[in-house]
Amino acid sequence: MSELILEEITSVLNTVLKKGEAPISLHEPYFAGQEAEYLKDCLDSGYVSSVGAYVNRFEEELCRFTGAKYAAAVVNGTAALQICLQLSGVRQGDEVLTPALTFVATANAVCYCGAVPHLVDCEPRSLGVDGEKLNDYLEHITEKRSGTCFNKRTGRPIRALVVMHTFGHPANLDSLLELCGRYGLQLVEDAAESLGSYYNNIHTGNFGRLSALSFNGNKIVTTGGGGAVLTNEESLYRKAKHITTTAKIPHRWAFYHDEVGYNFRMPNINAALGCAQLEQMNHFLQLKRALANEYRYAFAKISGVSFFSEPDYAKSNYWLNTLILSEENAFLRDDILEKTNNAGIQTRPAWVLMNRLPMFCDCPKMDLSTAESLEKRIINIPSSAKLGEPYYTPEGRI
Amino acid sequence: MSELILEEITSVLNTVLKKGEAPISLHEPYFAGQEAEYLKDCLDSGYVSSVGAYVNRFEEELCRFTGAKYAAAVVNGTAALQICLQLSGVRQGDEVLTPALTFVATANAVCYCGAVPHLVDCEPRSLGVDGEKLNDYLEHITEKRSGTCFNKRTGRPIRALVVMHTFGHPANLDSLLELCGRYGLQLVEDAAESLGSYYNNIHTGNFGRLSALSFNGNKIVTTGGGGAVLTNEESLYRKAKHITTTAKIPHRWAFYHDEVGYNFRMPNINAALGCAQLEQMNHFLQLKRALANEYRYAFAKISGVSFFSEPDYAKSNYWLNTLILSEENAFLRDDILEKTNNAGIQTRPAWVLMNRLPMFCDCPKMDLSTAESLEKRIINIPSSAKLGEPYYTPEGRI
Repeated sequence: MSELILEEITSVLNTVLKKGEAPISLHEPYFAGQEAEYLKDCLDSGYVSSVGAYVNRFEEELCRFTGAKYAAAVVNGTAALQICLQLSGVRQGDEVLTPALTFVATANAVCYCGAVPHLVDCEPRSLGVDGEKLNDYLEHITEKRSGTCFNKRTGRPIRALVVMHTFGHPANLDSLLELCGRYGLQLVEDAAESLGSYYNNIHTGNFGRLSALSFNGNKIVTTGGGGAVLTNEESLYRKAKHITTTAKIPHRWAFYHDEVGYNFRMPNINAALGCAQLEQMNHFLQLKRALANEYRYAFAKISGVSFFSEPDYAKSNYWLNTLILSEENAFLRDDILEKTNNAGIQTRPAWVLMNRLPMFCDCPKMDLSTAESLEKRIINIPSSAKLGEPYYTPEGRI
Repeated sequence: MSELILEEITSVLNTVLKKGEAPISLHEPYFAGQEAEYLKDCLDSGYVSSVGAYVNRFEEELCRFTGAKYAAAVVNGTAALQICLQLSGVRQGDEVLTPALTFVATANAVCYCGAVPHLVDCEPRSLGVDGEKLNDYLEHITEKRSGTCFNKRTGRPIRALVVMHTFGHPANLDSLLELCGRYGLQLVEDAAESLGSYYNNIHTGNFGRLSALSFNGNKIVTTGGGGAVLTNEESLYRKAKHITTTAKIPHRWAFYHDEVGYNFRMPNINAALGCAQLEQMNHFLQLKRALANEYRYAFAKISGVSFFSEPDYAKSNYWLNTLILSEENAFLRDDILEKTNNAGIQTRPAWVLMNRLPMFCDCPKMDLSTAESLEKRIINIPSSAKLGEPYYTPEGRI
């Protein structure tokens, strides 16, 4: 029986991915636009570094695409998250509610602020934070003192909740916004994976006061390395630009800085790449959705494994396509990883949960049984946009 | 009299810079090599992000050029410095001896480690840390307890000394190494400005156990944004690579991280630019030296202002050419800045001293009278490599 599923999964992957040549990566960037021209333009203009027209243009294009009023381009998604947390008021000795099922950067960024990640569970429907379960938990372990939510067990203030849109699928934001309102928490969206994903027709990153995007090489669009802080509040945007630009007071020649700032600006050359990539964003989204549809159709025939689809309320970018093994087939995960990777089809498990990493294992945490179950059963499969290209269309080969 | 100097300085700048067209920047990058080809190659290969052949090649070329055994490319010079300090053992609550005369990133990086900058004075000969004066100071305010140097006044351990090679001119490293040995301090070189600068024929960055380089757009070679950690110890290099790569344990698919790490890797696209730039390094150094020689000759005729030249022990990259007004002409600084900038010749003063910035004004500090005097009198003048190109040579126009 188990051998059968193993064979079936590999066979489906081979069928869907027949168009790709082995080895097939998990997620490759796709450069089919003005990338080379814009890079050349940077060289010709002499502007490759932290000042340049492409940085402004990239920020404007991000606003246009996401609907956010303001975007501050930074050096990567981790830096963006650190700025979001800091501008949310997270300080030394605070706790920040952080998903256990996430990439390590989410929890690291909390640490950079001197705060402690307080690990929370996810729900199977979205793979994002489980608002209902978290509410029950907070009811027991917190108390409000002069408007601030305190962890009764540790005595520390709980300042914020970071919600991460796992593999691009939007978390259930309404329930989480309600929860944040009830407990006086700042909501920060870790939207590193969800550029192009919508919650009730509104782009992710518009629900937290501050949200972080990433443009790493494995993301839906890339700047080489890069990230952005999104916000709809002008004062937060100005503050974000200020502290990511070494907190320098603008002046024709004087170097005066008014607080401890960061060198987090995105270089112009990286922004140029991003501008070219964003121009192709809608095409990438179409291709990724087409690939997800192919996977969904093909895996529907196999029992014991399900292809993860966007929640009802969401339109997802299907950044990283995801299989979930049934409980009884969980033990097959490593065999499948082994077999597919050996066959040149790159697959990977979910991240090791934060509570199982040595630096976070002593952090406060709620019951994490859903995350623990999912971690054992998740397998991510190749998701590059170009894999969604049809071989033939009525108009001919694409 | 004062009017005269003002006229003379502007006139000399106009003469030396006649070859440039106004406006003349303080420091522009120079792209005359394989920049466009290498960037195109990144796009063609699909490797633009944190994995790629140019990152390794750039690190190797840096080693070859500097003579350091190991180089770890990172996202910028500030990040490099943060890693140097952390790997030097700087921790929360420590003090780090930091020049008052430096760019704010030096002191910021100390803060990122949770440590406190302890501000120290510089000497007029090198503009770097004054080892003799610092020694006298430490003799009074420190005591050794079980091998560790403590500040008797604050009770905090003093863990390290950061020496910065101001405007590219090497500090007096022998005296500083001796001092570090005597007090049990780690020496970290902030070599952000001194790629191409040598102390007693050894490249800067080889004297501290860990050193930081920068490749910002205004540096002698640029990667857009970028930096590197240099070291001659393999274990420190491995550690630097590890914690700048999110402390991930290499594995074909598993995401296991064993400590709080950073997303500090230099993207391949930025490294590609750096490789092309490093190929032209010797030419850039020649041009910059030629420009400095022109300035030196021209300013020698003006009294009341001196052109700053490399110390005897050093060969400098003349990264940022520097005028120093005499004490009695210090009051002219802002007039000169105003007049030259208005005329399209970009000039700037020294950085505002760290002890005058609000976030560092309460930091412990020694007598800073030399830095305070120099701050009032320093003017940096245009220094781009291309300004060193002769109009004519025996072989004809270059």
